[in-house]
Parts: sequence; C-alpha cells; structure tokens
Amino acid sequence: MAKLPKRSEDYSAWYNELVKTADLAENSDVRGCMVIKPYGYSIWEKMQQELDKRFKETGHSNAYFPLFIPKSYLSKEASHVEGFAKECAVVTHYRLKNDPNGGGVIVDPEAKLEEELIVRPTSETIIWNTYKNWIQSYRDLPILVNQWANVVRWEMRTRLFLRTTEFLWQEGHTAHATQAEAEFEAKQMLEVYADFAENILALPVIKGVKTANERFAGAIDTYCIEAMMQDGKALQAGTSHFLGQNFAKAFDCKFTSKDNKIEYVWGTSWGVSTRLMGALIMAHSDDEGLVLPPNLAPIQVVIVPIFKSEEQLQAITNKVNVWKMALSKKGISVKFDNSDTQSPGWKFAQYELKGVPVRVAIGQRDLDNGTCEIARRDTKTKTSIQSDTLVDYIEQLLPEIQKNIYQKALDFRTSQTVEVDTWDAFLETINHKTGFISAHWDGTSETEEKIKELTKATIRCIPIGNKKEKGKCVFSGNESNERVIFALNY
Amino acid sequence: MAKLPKRSEDYSAWYNELVKTADLAENSDVRGCMVIKPYGYSIWEKMQQELDKRFKETGHSNAYFPLFIPKSYLSKEASHVEGFAKECAVVTHYRLKNDPNGGGVIVDPEAKLEEELIVRPTSETIIWNTYKNWIQSYRDLPILVNQWANVVRWEMRTRLFLRTTEFLWQEGHTAHATQAEAEFEAKQMLEVYADFAENILALPVIKGVKTANERFAGAIDTYCIEAMMQDGKALQAGTSHFLGQNFAKAFDCKFTSKDNKIEYVWGTSWGVSTRLMGALIMAHSDDEGLVLPPNLAPIQVVIVPIFKSEEQLQAITNKVNVWKMALSKKGISVKFDNSDTQSPGWKFAQYELKGVPVRVAIGQRDLDNGTCEIARRDTKTKTSIQSDTLVDYIEQLLPEIQKNIYQKALDFRTSQTVEVDTWDAFLETINHKTGFISAHWDGTSETEEKIKELTKATIRCIPIGNKKEKGKCVFSGNESNERVIFALNY
Repeated sequence: MAKLPKRSEDYSAWYNELVKTADLAENSDVRGCMVIKPYGYSIWEKMQQELDKRFKETGHSNAYFPLFIPKSYLSKEASHVEGFAKECAVVTHYRLKNDPNGGGVIVDPEAKLEEELIVRPTSETIIWNTYKNWIQSYRDLPILVNQWANVVRWEMRTRLFLRTTEFLWQEGHTAHATQAEAEFEAKQMLEVYADFAENILALPVIKGVKTANERFAGAIDTYCIEAMMQDGKALQAGTSHFLGQNFAKAFDCKFTSKDNKIEYVWGTSWGVSTRLMGALIMAHSDDEGLVLPPNLAPIQVVIVPIFKSEEQLQAITNKVNVWKMALSKKGISVKFDNSDTQSPGWKFAQYELKGVPVRVAIGQRDLDNGTCEIARRDTKTKTSIQSDTLVDYIEQLLPEIQKNIYQKALDFRTSQTVEVDTWDAFLETINHKTGFISAHWDGTSETEEKIKELTKATIRCIPIGNKKEKGKCVFSGNESNERVIFALNY
Repeated sequence: MAKLPKRSEDYSAWYNELVKTADLAENSDVRGCMVIKPYGYSIWEKMQQELDKRFKETGHSNAYFPLFIPKSYLSKEASHVEGFAKECAVVTHYRLKNDPNGGGVIVDPEAKLEEELIVRPTSETIIWNTYKNWIQSYRDLPILVNQWANVVRWEMRTRLFLRTTEFLWQEGHTAHATQAEAEFEAKQMLEVYADFAENILALPVIKGVKTANERFAGAIDTYCIEAMMQDGKALQAGTSHFLGQNFAKAFDCKFTSKDNKIEYVWGTSWGVSTRLMGALIMAHSDDEGLVLPPNLAPIQVVIVPIFKSEEQLQAITNKVNVWKMALSKKGISVKFDNSDTQSPGWKFAQYELKGVPVRVAIGQRDLDNGTCEIARRDTKTKTSIQSDTLVDYIEQLLPEIQKNIYQKALDFRTSQTVEVDTWDAFLETINHKTGFISAHWDGTSETEEKIKELTKATIRCIPIGNKKEKGKCVFSGNESNERVIFALNY
C-alpha cells in the first residue's frame, strides 16, 4: 500500500490522496462532478440519519421540489440572481436525434425550450413559488419543510467534497407568520447544526453571524458555524438564513393574519452539504489515514484474527462470534475480517487508512492466555486486555474516543487562535501562523474588503454571544465594540 | 371538504384529484415536474427504508454517481441510445449573464459547453465508465452498488407519480465475474421487489420476463413485476435487467479471471421509482380517499377526541397519553388530533382521505363506560371495544388490515384474469372487460406488434414458473408452449 503524502509537507496533496485511497470519492469524467464511493457514501448516510432525526425532532418534514428552475424565477429576487446566475447549468433543449451526416447523436435544434431551465443551485425560488399556493391564512403557517437533494453550481476550480459542481445537501425552507418566529427558527437550526457538528462529527465550531459581504444572496441575516481545519484554515460547515420577507415579496406570497390583515410571509432557509465530508477528513485525519469519530464510523470495531492454521482460525472464530453478537446487541457495528488473502499487517494498515476507531487483534497466544489486543485509531495506542472484559471495555472506549477526538480538535483551535490588536501584528500573524485571528473591526464593508485584498483573510463570523469590548479597528483604527474572527478559508 | 369524483364514473379524474387533495403531490410550474408534498414524501420515505433494508441484507451498498452524462456516452451502447436519447434534458451552457439590452438574465453565448451534458435518464453509461477503473481482477468482483437518485426523461404527456419528467428512484448496478452470478443477481432482485410489493405495499404481483419488444434498452433479459390496478389495467411496478456483457463491451470493462484469462464483466441493473406511489394509490384506494396498508402508513392510528369542554378533553387526554406511550413502545405510530378548530366529523373525513388504517374515537360516554370506538379504514366497519384492551386489539388489528388489503387486491386480480383461446374471444374481452388476458402467443414480435396495433394490449410478461401447455397462438394460430399475460397498461 502506497504511503500518503505527509500533512506537514503537502497538506493539499495529503487530502486529495486520502480521499481517493480511503475509498471515499473520486473525480468522474464529468468536469467537477464526483463519484461518492460506497465507503464514503456510508459515512454520508450516517450524517444524513443524524441530521434527519434532528430535523424531525424539531417538527420538520421532508418533501421534494423540481430539479429545474425556470430562468425567469432566478431574476425575481434581485440579489439572489447576482449570487447564483453566474455559475449554473442551463438546459436549453429536450431531445437528441441521429445526426443525418452519421456523426452519432446531436442536439435536435427543433427541440429548443421556450424558456431555458436552470439546474437548481439552491431552491428558494421554486419553493417560494410553490408556497404561495399553499398559504392563504395564518392557519397554514408555519410550513417546516426540508429537502434532501442534489444541486449544481458551476465551479471553475473544484476539489473533492469541498467544492464540486454537483453536490448533495439538505435545504430547509420554512415559512412563518411573524418575524420573531422566523428569526427563532433560523437560530434554532444553527443550534441543531452546532449540536450535530460537535457531538457527531466531533468538530468544535464557532457559532456566528456573517457580515453583509458574506451573507447568502437574498438573506437578511446569515448565521453560520465555522470550524478550523488542521492547516489552520476556516471551513464554513453550515449556514442558516433569516430571509425576512424577501422571497415572499419576490413571489407575492401573502397571508391573512389573526387580526385579519394581509401580510407577507417570513422565511428562513438552512443547509449543510457533502462539504461536511471534507471538514470531517481535514479536521481529524492523520498521515496514516482517516480518523473517524465513533458516532459516524460505518465500522466501529474491526476484529483481525492472527492465525497459522484453519484450526486456529476456527478457535478464534468461535470466540469472535460471541463478541460480535454481544457488541451488535449494544448497537456497536463490528466487522470480523477473516479473509486469508491478506496478512494481518496489511489489514492493520488498511483499517487505519479507513479510520476504524477500534481494532481488536487476537491470535493463538491470546487464546491461550485469555487476552486480546485493543488498538485505538485516535491515539494509536495498544493495550492488552482480558478477553472476557472486551464487550464492556469497548462500550466504554467508544465514547471516550469520540470525546478525545473532539477535545484534540478544540485544543488545536484554541492554540491556533490569537487576539491581535495592531495591523502589523495582523500581517505578521496571517503571514506566519495559520489559524483564527480575533480582532476589532470597524463594521464597514470597505475595511473588510481592503483586508481581504491585502491578506486574503475574510471575516468568518461575528461570534454569537460575543463579549462586548471597546477597541479600535485593527485596520482603520476606528471605534469597535467587539472582536470578530478573521481567517483564511476553504 | 369537496368530494372526490367516483372511480366508477371517472377513474382518471378520481386519481388526479385524490393525489392532490390527500396532499401527496402536485404539478409544479415546471412542465412535467412534480412537487412531492410532505405527506406523500413520508410514504415514499417508508418505501425507501423498506427497500434499502432489503438491498443491504442482500449485500448491496449505496453510492452516488454524477447527474450529468456526456452526450457521447449514451451512444456507446447501440440499443441504449435508441431507447433514451430521444427524450432527455440537454445542458448546453454553464453561465447566464445580464442582458446588455436590459431584458433580465440571458444565456451567455460564450459559455457553451464543448460537449453537451445529458441529465441522466438512467445511469448505466456513467457507472460502467466508472466501473472499468474499479475492476482489474476477479478479486474486485462482485460490485454490488445501489444509488438513490433523481432522473429525467422528457415526457410529452405526464401524470403525477405515474409518468413525470423528473422522478425519484433507486437504481442498482452490479458487476460480476460470471454469467450465472449475474443472472442469479437479476432474479434475486426481482424476488426482493416482489417481496416488498406483496408484504409492504400489499400489492399482489406477477413475476415474469419481458418479451424482446418490451425489454430495457441494452438488456439481454428484463424481469418484471406486474400489478393490476382497480380499473383492470396493468402497471409495471419494478424491473430487473440481466445486461449480459453489453455495457462492459461498450465501456471496455474487462477483468482477469481466476484462470488468468481476460474477460468482459457481466452486469445487471434494477430499479423502482416514485411510480410505486401511483401503484399504491390505484390498487387500494376508494371513493373516500387513500387506503394505506399499515406497513406503509406514516400514521397508523389516529385518535379523535369528542368533547364539549376543556375538562372533558383533559380527561380524554389523560387516557390517550397512556395509550400513546404503550402503542409507541410497540412501534405503532399514533397521532392524537386534539385541535379544537375542526369538528370530529371533519377529522373523520380528513383521516379517511389520508388513508390512516385505524381510527379511535373517544368521548365522555366512552369514558363513563370504559369503552372506545375503533374504525377500520379498509372495511369501513366500526366496533366498540373495552378501552383497556385497546393496545392489544390494535396490535392484532394492523397485520389483519395489511392482510385484508392484500387479499382484496388478489381476489380482484383473480376475478379480472381470464384465459382466452380464440381471437374473437380476445377482442370481445379486451373491448368489454378490463383485466389480464392469459393467452397463447407464437413467440414472434410480429404477432405481438399486430395485437398491440389492433387492441392496444401489450404482453405484460411471460410469467416465471409458467405451466407448460401446448396450444395455438390466439392471433396467428401457430404453435405455442405456454400462455402469456396480455393487458392494457399504464
């Protein structure tokens, strides 16, 4: 098995290589579109299950809206079209025909659409155009709907999971009778994302609100969770938008309120995507391969037998079958790799690469001594334990690993976050040390843009519940009331 | 609440109206594309869960392949392109721009793709183009992969669920080292579909093989399950294709066998779609609305309180809360509709329309007597029972309802299936009685096409395990060894 590039030498090559060799995804022959391979997809399925459960617990239902959006819909919300129209797949025809000159199939020029269709880059427009027919009175509200779907944004530079032309995501779209209710919803979904990121992905996140420059095209406020990758860059791991009445106005979506007034509906939208796979990989994995938090690992425990004869394998198998049953009963997923085509050493490396949290090795000497060897993927430590304690041991170990992976990422973030108060210090930091910079900002788009131009750093967010603190903008020297987070980002 | 059209008067209008009023789906403003509403989608989700479980139990994993297929890929398998190229959405451009003449956004002529992309109508081509890189040796086989996805086939005449331009489906694509293994897989998946249809959808199906005319474009054999709707027409509810080496040859997908020979890979593909929603509705529902088999119903039991005061409602609620907990523990989904904005009568009609299998009504007199009223959706019968037996009663009732719905559909199919031995009898039957005709056929495409031309009836399938029986073709009088199923179809 070829070794991965080292993170310290070429972080980017390490990531690309890991995604491929761990069987997570690969580029397809269609520019910018990826194939998500079975192992990668099984991790995405676990993310989907955990998110879907949380959406339903907070009262949401799933539905499905069309893949295609009439071109004119995109133009109805002015800032929305600016944000999305420039990078989209356009369907112009609905038929192919045989080339009369024998050149295979060609587009049939007679099958041209009257109005072009856009492959959805996001679904606010088609959904609000639908909601307007669903909503007459306050009794029809709220509408709490989520959609699991594929979307397409034509990207010039793509990277597996992080930025692809087609990606998978969920998009929640809710409609409310009052501003307060819609704002509550947008913030609630941010909490749901943060809970999911921290407890399932083991990914510490900063909850914040975006500046006007970084807001979703069509939103009043964009809330976000921002995570730090191992190279110190920020990755936006989820967003929740308070849309105000913008889309309701664009699609003429009104309702009769309790006091019998005609009002525009208030909206939110929120989404996370297969980009989370990129975040997961870049936050935790190491030079040997993936490191998966147990709460997401498709295989939580792998058992590798070490044997020299069929007889030895049989004796090990008898023991393992009892473990497998007991572990499965506790909801722990186990794989027993008894194949004889590969050596134990090869298997060890393979399951390290795949990020399986716990490896159990058992051979003849272990059988004789009533022991087995437990290896943790996160710390790479090995322990020999009494084999009759294995089930309880693993049951306690999995949450410990989950916690440790989270803590490690949190400690790293803490160590890579610095408060900076002068422009020189800002430049010094951004050029020599990766990570988050907590600094005062004067609140203007002008300053924000200037800083981006000079350093490539953007304001990742204004943290929610931020400490109020008088200070001077790190760039302009103007007054400021709180610090914001600057970073380079994916 | 407006009444549905009667099935006996206008079956087609009844179906269209039911799909809309029961909140299953509606047409969107995008031609031929539907919106699947939350209630409809929750039924589809249950179908997905049941199918997905069966796919995984038979060793399959999910993965994801690109939405777009380069135009040239479609041409690589000759019959495949004939079957699919004529009805597809073609992406020709990747950018919009502001109209310099102020007409909103227009397609940017400079952003024309070198090769057009087709929105997948099915994924054999892109998947076999991927598999060829995954497969070198027999050790890489079998590949057992499924994909849950949206597909697009440009349909001129669409109907909600039954025929839509975009629909949701799953498509399994497997690769094998031997013909026998691939044939086994194709037949196995047919059995999986039949089991799902009969036990979950309560839909009796005939398992069979398609004639050459009705085969999937690119398959050697197409296996199918055919169901009968209440108007006597046939609906193809799922297909499983043995692809031979057709796609492997088209995409140059070879492997080194155990005996060290280079061979082409053997393939299968198999799929079911949101069309099953149409089958479900048309097979069981009645003039009052949906009839859902308990195994698919998002709400299995609805409890409607009948009360005149807050106090009465409170007493009922106390009792209901105990039931809810006990029923939930048994995995039975319950809704307690305690809203005070609608009358009990309105609620009764509403849950009938939505197809909830069991309704429990409880009022003050029931409280006094220790009773409650149980209404079955399938038979429309009501019974008063002792309320302390409710949980056990319902637990036994749900499988009974499931069985009854299946049996009713089976009895109907039996009553509407006739053996026909002369051409006059065939014409008489097809023109005056709906249903399946079991008749001898000479095995030629010519006869099959002639019969279709004259009567619109097609051969739905040659049933698997068919009785061998000497006879004469109902049309040509030529020799035949077995009967096939003719019917009008959706």
